Amino acid sequence: MNATIYRAVVNIAAICGLYLAAAMLVPALVDIYYGHRDWKVFMLSAVLVGGLSTVTAAATRAGPPPFNKKMGFLLVNVLWLVFSLVGALPFMLSSLDMNFAKALFESVSAITTTGSTVISGLDNAPPGILMWRSLLHWLGGIGIVALGLFVMPYLRVGGISFFKMESSDTNDKPFARIASFTRAFVLIYVLITLACTLVFAALGMSRFDAVNHAMATVATGGFSTHDASFGYFNSLPLLWAGTFFMTLCSLPFSILIVFMVRGRLDALRDPQIGVFLGYLLLFSVAIAIYQRLQNGVPFHEALTHSFFTVSTILSTTGFASQDYTLWGPFVVTMAFFMTFMGGCSGSTAGGIKAYRFIILFNSIRTGLYKLIYPNGIHIVRYGKMAVDPDLQRNVFLFFVTYLLLWATGSVAMTAMGYDLLTSASSVITALSNVGPGVGPIVGPAGNFSTISDPALYLLTIMMLLGRLEVLTVLVVLTPLFWKS
Amino acid sequence: MNATIYRAVVNIAAICGLYLAAAMLVPALVDIYYGHRDWKVFMLSAVLVGGLSTVTAAATRAGPPPFNKKMGFLLVNVLWLVFSLVGALPFMLSSLDMNFAKALFESVSAITTTGSTVISGLDNAPPGILMWRSLLHWLGGIGIVALGLFVMPYLRVGGISFFKMESSDTNDKPFARIASFTRAFVLIYVLITLACTLVFAALGMSRFDAVNHAMATVATGGFSTHDASFGYFNSLPLLWAGTFFMTLCSLPFSILIVFMVRGRLDALRDPQIGVFLGYLLLFSVAIAIYQRLQNGVPFHEALTHSFFTVSTILSTTGFASQDYTLWGPFVVTMAFFMTFMGGCSGSTAGGIKAYRFIILFNSIRTGLYKLIYPNGIHIVRYGKMAVDPDLQRNVFLFFVTYLLLWATGSVAMTAMGYDLLTSASSVITALSNVGPGVGPIVGPAGNFSTISDPALYLLTIMMLLGRLEVLTVLVVLTPLFWKS
Repeated sequence: MNATIYRAVVNIAAICGLYLAAAMLVPALVDIYYGHRDWKVFMLSAVLVGGLSTVTAAATRAGPPPFNKKMGFLLVNVLWLVFSLVGALPFMLSSLDMNFAKALFESVSAITTTGSTVISGLDNAPPGILMWRSLLHWLGGIGIVALGLFVMPYLRVGGISFFKMESSDTNDKPFARIASFTRAFVLIYVLITLACTLVFAALGMSRFDAVNHAMATVATGGFSTHDASFGYFNSLPLLWAGTFFMTLCSLPFSILIVFMVRGRLDALRDPQIGVFLGYLLLFSVAIAIYQRLQNGVPFHEALTHSFFTVSTILSTTGFASQDYTLWGPFVVTMAFFMTFMGGCSGSTAGGIKAYRFIILFNSIRTGLYKLIYPNGIHIVRYGKMAVDPDLQRNVFLFFVTYLLLWATGSVAMTAMGYDLLTSASSVITALSNVGPGVGPIVGPAGNFSTISDPALYLLTIMMLLGRLEVLTVLVVLTPLFWKS
Repeated sequence: MNATIYRAVVNIAAICGLYLAAAMLVPALVDIYYGHRDWKVFMLSAVLVGGLSTVTAAATRAGPPPFNKKMGFLLVNVLWLVFSLVGALPFMLSSLDMNFAKALFESVSAITTTGSTVISGLDNAPPGILMWRSLLHWLGGIGIVALGLFVMPYLRVGGISFFKMESSDTNDKPFARIASFTRAFVLIYVLITLACTLVFAALGMSRFDAVNHAMATVATGGFSTHDASFGYFNSLPLLWAGTFFMTLCSLPFSILIVFMVRGRLDALRDPQIGVFLGYLLLFSVAIAIYQRLQNGVPFHEALTHSFFTVSTILSTTGFASQDYTLWGPFVVTMAFFMTFMGGCSGSTAGGIKAYRFIILFNSIRTGLYKLIYPNGIHIVRYGKMAVDPDLQRNVFLFFVTYLLLWATGSVAMTAMGYDLLTSASSVITALSNVGPGVGPIVGPAGNFSTISDPALYLLTIMMLLGRLEVLTVLVVLTPLFWKS
């Protein structure tokens, strides 16, 4: 590490700070439109952040930095830290009067597209603040897809990029390709958000609700403008629309990017898509049947709610159509374990993710064969691609650290006075960026407003760790990283 | 696989059956001594099993078999299956009138040294049955240590044998060495059991209780002759004695074997010992402090109970001195996560085990370094020994399959109508061979007598999977294993 790198990292962070300052004008306008005095909060925040960012960016201006792995890791961590702090500012200054722990939690929950909230009484919250939460979700979603598609594969953490799988592409001009893919991605993201807004509005949401829920859906975030979340609208068609868009956005965006840039749909060959949709279908139908048999719910209603619930957890969105933890112990347990699973890589979804499960299962099968025939040649495959030992090891490392973090985090939560279920489920819902846990406090009918400040800090760290695929953060915490 | 191998496996199993038939004479004598009519059950079982075993052994008699890996895997599975079925016979025939599911569960729980029981009213149970349970524990303990020390390292599953670490020894006569080590081990096992019996008796247990609890302690099993387990005796010195012997028997027996055979204590250098004792100490003190501060328990009493509870869970014994789940949510969560952890390899303890955690932690550190410097040379160490990639992979495979089995098992339990806590904790306590779970049904104050038959079968499979280090069983379930 040297001064050039630090300077470059600070410079990029300052430029991103400028963008966030500009983004604050949106909730400011919303508050002006609805006549809420908090527009001043956003203007003040924009001026503060914008000013500081401009000065910092100017002071650290330099030529294009020498990009390397260390800088990559540092940059990712610093960016998400800056986003988190800048995002928290309006919450602290607003009329909701949140302390630093709560404001930071809400901001990180938004940026990481988790969707756990410490605000109760959303239905009467200032519109600017609601918009700011949704906007942070939406920007966080862009950030994480860009990271997952282009940066993480380079750092060899968290993700098989489809573009890596396409062997024919590895030798053409990578930067030109990245630029065209990035443009295509942002356009697709905007278009899906618009489509989602229109559909939600057509199915009965107010314009404000439609825009906010669309941003939270596309980012697989889960913040709502109502305490009752999707349950507020009491509409089965709306639940199906939500299910469709949440599922779409937990699939790799590479499908649509490649379709737009190349006119081909061959990114659909990515094996994680079939596996993810497979277990989504399986779990939804299982829960619907359980609901029908156990609780006598009409099947079409049971199916609507179970598809919505399964897709909201697997996509790591975290909306709620009902308090599904009241459906029975089977659903509680399913919800708990689904919280670990997550969506696909290259999407806005979090969690362990389908591609890792594929690699883990294939590694287990291969490993068992190797125990029988130690000298045979056993290749672990991901679709047609051979998974090299480095990637296998990184998948294992991720899985182990993920679960060890969950276990230690849960013990820490419980040392702060929470029961086993609340602790274990709040830590995993933070780590997987889902949103709700199980149990009366952090379940889908509750929220995080009564959680103590130290516990909120713990969960904030978990959300950031999970969002950045754990290893990205841990790397920066090793002493070796800081040696010159 | 060929006929010679099957024949040899059946032959060895039949010979073991003979030993078990002989062992049935012990509870028969106990019942005769105490004047209980169930002595006939044991005599009948002994004649049945002995007769069948003799015929089978004679019919399959042959020269020494060609030992290979496949045969090793098959043999281990067949042996434990035979032990389980033979062990279940007296339970089915006895005056307790248990059905097959319950009898098999009790037998497997004994053989695998788990210690979960479906019998309520132990205080009035026939003495022969109580002795049979303890004896199965005790024999299961011998079996698993022999397996862990000599067979598993050869199969490259579940265990770093100290004898593998001792590089100077790898080239001397391995069979002579194994024979002398085995003799030493059995002698040590008998001596520790005697010492434990004498200490328990001296501290106030009846002779019968002392013998039974000593066998259950040395095997880290956990069956008691009283529903209240160790709590029945209401004696702090007894708890310390129990703590000492449970901890001793969850350390590698190689320490004492090498001391006896060579007069050296250098097996103490095995890194898992320090790590295991380290977290045992840490957790015990943490829980004692919590008990003192939160519940105002006098510190020496809190420390006695916390050391006993932590060592009974970590050693995977599963006695109870009190219903520790009433001590508060922190203890419940600790108990839940400690159930995964286990003792040392080369002992009677189950669980994930300390040596795997050492290798996992060192792999994580090395993996993080490799992310920063992909071309550097990063060696994963276990003490001074370099851990080869095969062993690393097997540790990862074990960890992943262990947790996936836990998750799928918990969902299956919950589909049978149990709540999340009961499901998740009963599956992990079975898989880790601990004994009690948390929650009102399977917690330390409860037992498994109300669990339905299908759920008992599920837990029975989990106990066997866990005891045989998971992969040993899964290997035999792959189609490749059965190809010629």
